[in-house]
Amino acid sequence: MADPRFFKLAGPFSLAYLAGLVGAQLGDEARGSAVAKDVAPLDRAGPDDVSFLDNRKYVDVFATSKAGACIVHPGLVSRAPAGMALLISLEPYRAYALIAAAFYPEAAPDGWISPGATVDPSAVVGRGTRVEAGAVIGAGVEIGRGCRIAPNAVIEHGVVIGDDCVVGANASLSHCILGKGVIVYPGARIGQDGFGFAVGATGYTKVPQLGRVIIHDDVEIGANTTIDRGSGPDTVIGAGCRIDNLVQIGHNVELGRGCVIVSQVGISGSTKVGDYVQMGGQAGLTGHLNIGAKARISAQAGVMRDVAPGETVAGSPAQPGREHWKQMAFLERLTKKKAQGG
Amino acid sequence: MADPRFFKLAGPFSLAYLAGLVGAQLGDEARGSAVAKDVAPLDRAGPDDVSFLDNRKYVDVFATSKAGACIVHPGLVSRAPAGMALLISLEPYRAYALIAAAFYPEAAPDGWISPGATVDPSAVVGRGTRVEAGAVIGAGVEIGRGCRIAPNAVIEHGVVIGDDCVVGANASLSHCILGKGVIVYPGARIGQDGFGFAVGATGYTKVPQLGRVIIHDDVEIGANTTIDRGSGPDTVIGAGCRIDNLVQIGHNVELGRGCVIVSQVGISGSTKVGDYVQMGGQAGLTGHLNIGAKARISAQAGVMRDVAPGETVAGSPAQPGREHWKQMAFLERLTKKKAQGG
Amino acid sequence: MADPRFFKLAGPFSLAYLAGLVGAQLGDEARGSAVAKDVAPLDRAGPDDVSFLDNRKYVDVFATSKAGACIVHPGLVSRAPAGMALLISLEPYRAYALIAAAFYPEAAPDGWISPGATVDPSAVVGRGTRVEAGAVIGAGVEIGRGCRIAPNAVIEHGVVIGDDCVVGANASLSHCILGKGVIVYPGARIGQDGFGFAVGATGYTKVPQLGRVIIHDDVEIGANTTIDRGSGPDTVIGAGCRIDNLVQIGHNVELGRGCVIVSQVGISGSTKVGDYVQMGGQAGLTGHLNIGAKARISAQAGVMRDVAPGETVAGSPAQPGREHWKQMAFLERLTKKKAQGG
Repeated sequence: MADPRFFKLAGPFSLAYLAGLVGAQLGDEARGSAVAKDVAPLDRAGPDDVSFLDNRKYVDVFATSKAGACIVHPGLVSRAPAGMALLISLEPYRAYALIAAAFYPEAAPDGWISPGATVDPSAVVGRGTRVEAGAVIGAGVEIGRGCRIAPNAVIEHGVVIGDDCVVGANASLSHCILGKGVIVYPGARIGQDGFGFAVGATGYTKVPQLGRVIIHDDVEIGANTTIDRGSGPDTVIGAGCRIDNLVQIGHNVELGRGCVIVSQVGISGSTKVGDYVQMGGQAGLTGHLNIGAKARISAQAGVMRDVAPGETVAGSPAQPGREHWKQMAFLERLTKKKAQGG
Repeated sequence: MADPRFFKLAGPFSLAYLAGLVGAQLGDEARGSAVAKDVAPLDRAGPDDVSFLDNRKYVDVFATSKAGACIVHPGLVSRAPAGMALLISLEPYRAYALIAAAFYPEAAPDGWISPGATVDPSAVVGRGTRVEAGAVIGAGVEIGRGCRIAPNAVIEHGVVIGDDCVVGANASLSHCILGKGVIVYPGARIGQDGFGFAVGATGYTKVPQLGRVIIHDDVEIGANTTIDRGSGPDTVIGAGCRIDNLVQIGHNVELGRGCVIVSQVGISGSTKVGDYVQMGGQAGLTGHLNIGAKARISAQAGVMRDVAPGETVAGSPAQPGREHWKQMAFLERLTKKKAQGG
Repeated sequence: MADPRFFKLAGPFSLAYLAGLVGAQLGDEARGSAVAKDVAPLDRAGPDDVSFLDNRKYVDVFATSKAGACIVHPGLVSRAPAGMALLISLEPYRAYALIAAAFYPEAAPDGWISPGATVDPSAVVGRGTRVEAGAVIGAGVEIGRGCRIAPNAVIEHGVVIGDDCVVGANASLSHCILGKGVIVYPGARIGQDGFGFAVGATGYTKVPQLGRVIIHDDVEIGANTTIDRGSGPDTVIGAGCRIDNLVQIGHNVELGRGCVIVSQVGISGSTKVGDYVQMGGQAGLTGHLNIGAKARISAQAGVMRDVAPGETVAGSPAQPGREHWKQMAFLERLTKKKAQGG
């Protein structure tokens, strides 16, 4: 059971209810009225818990688990231990996510503005939005319904935030427009002016950054991640993107829909990224590139040229993944051979 | 036009005024009284806009642009479309920066201390400095004139800030002295004690860090960047340095004048960096190195030895750039040859 | 002398007192009543200062130093200049750390809750703990004795903090339990939910993250570092770990005791790290790995497989250090040979 200091348990729920919730099929309809009280991993679950099997690696743990019920792919049903109730789903991990959310629902914000918050009189805060102590909301800001603005978050003048967004503790937003359901994690920095200056004979001259950051619906932006606003064009984050912690996104970058950007990636200015691109941790991209849809950038890759749709690249400088791995293996073999006097 | 939610447009201005402002020459003096109302990129500019051509790559866009006026290098004047007024400059991008700043001037701070700020009675705040809600200013702090201390910024005891500085939202400063015109972006951390401990038989012992961070005039420090204070000597950032987001600068590091440090670079303790050094994104430097003036460290380079003035290094471990690129190309060719049975 | 704006000097102290404090032996007992007024590095120390020699590289500086007293290893005593008083110690750097802390003691917090802080009535704050302006402390939080909660720090509901901890400016904590003597530097983010989502046919589904972050005694967590809470299991940081700035630690990661994690390292989810492991700057580890005790991960290494106890790995992908360096050297030689027509 999750620590009650931090999490509030709901339920119990019948297996029939849970199966319906996630579109799973009960292995045995007669078990539908059985009750589950919590979720738990396979190795720690007991008779009152729902667990899940998502990864074939854990089939043996599954086969001996004491979980009362388990979400499982149809192809693995035969490995279930006797007596375990099954919720059969083509997407067991997603089903688990929904069931876990049923047991541990996030409380809806309750439409409260802390007396310790500072809200400019010209700002508009939607119904059901909670503004915590120390939050500062500037002139002309518009915040939708059902949002949570966490303590000490700063929303500078003019920012627009859609419904059902969360702005984490100590995050700061300026010059940006957020869609619905966006989650900004603590300490993220969105909309500051980018790294823009003209190099001249007499030094560096700051170039006014006149664009914005546009964040579409259902985006998540990780803790301490930084997204600079555009220089004239906008910086754009497509719907459904998942951006991890400590990521840097430069001015005028455009991400398509559903991109997954792992921690500590850096994307330099004006690079355009297609839909559903994945980038591994600490990858770096230079500016003004085009990265095709569904491309995969390996962790720590250093991308200096365009990447075709669907292509996988690796290494620094990044090359087609297959080439990179071949070269690494070749160098390893060659060095060993040489060492043996070959 | 920039989004009026965030940016306030000034002007219009005559071309003669703008040319004078930036030291440009009008292509046709007779056009001096014509009026411009805004700035815009070449492909989106209309007859009332000033645009600029800085990169030969865009000459074709320039040749068909509908911009009423354009800032251009003398060497490219011949490619201008008929009817376009020209502002001829040897530094078109810098001229654009100044003209854009004329159209979108930053409002001077207005000498206001928010009732939501906490300012220690012993702190001194200069005339014309704005201290926003939630900012906390400690004992003995001295802040110059015309500064902006953004919401929820924290200035710990004793810190000195020169005139015309900006400290961004949620940034925190301690044990540091800032010159004039320094911009600290949101979430930057300056002056905390560095990673200093003695390794002993009984564990790690914290070593008091008794130095400061000295930041000279006209420095910019990016969002969520961290600069530790010196251990006894100071950490020093030279005048005019441009430091991007999420950069780490260890204790006792010294940067010369005008260095450009791109995002996610890490510089380990006690490394000395000469004037006008450039470091690409995600480069890493070990400690106690000497990096000569005007050296260039490529993106993702891993620098483990000194770099001579003017030298370019690349790769991890970093080598002279030419060597590194030769080795990469060689390995690629050799692997391919081998694969073909060569 | 450290800048009195920031540091308060204590003392003077007799050499006998200082020797006793750190378990050093006086080179000449007759000098025990001599008095020291400050600490200083060898090259700047004068007759009233205590200095230290920790690194053989500085033996020549030592031999000509004007320091009145110096902490030195027994093996280097013979190199001391005439007239210098010696404090002989097997751990000179650790002895220096303790003596420096005697001269510049950190003031104990004084048990004060700023009227500018927001403390939930259900929170418990221990005796002698200082809560600064702008700090926000949520429901059910428990904070021990002698802590400092710096300005604008955010402690979300339910968090537990042991005695003698420091939470830096603008840091934010949620879903975590801290032992004693933990130092959280400014802007660190602890306990937000990790990068967890199920990929399905209809998009990404957030997976509730039901674990916590458990931080054992005497841990330091650097500025702007991010540590995500567990997904069900906890994320665990072992006693005495030293984590530098801008480090990313994913959900369910476990660090053993005394690990040293240098700046900008990224550790992906569910990786288990043994005791006293060291990781150089910008190293990256993929998820679900086992890193053995006392392993050493070189700077910028990209670790994709398990590392045995005591092993050193380097390169990306990381290999045994010796192999990696051999390959790098081999490639360098081979390329040169080829260029010479070899």
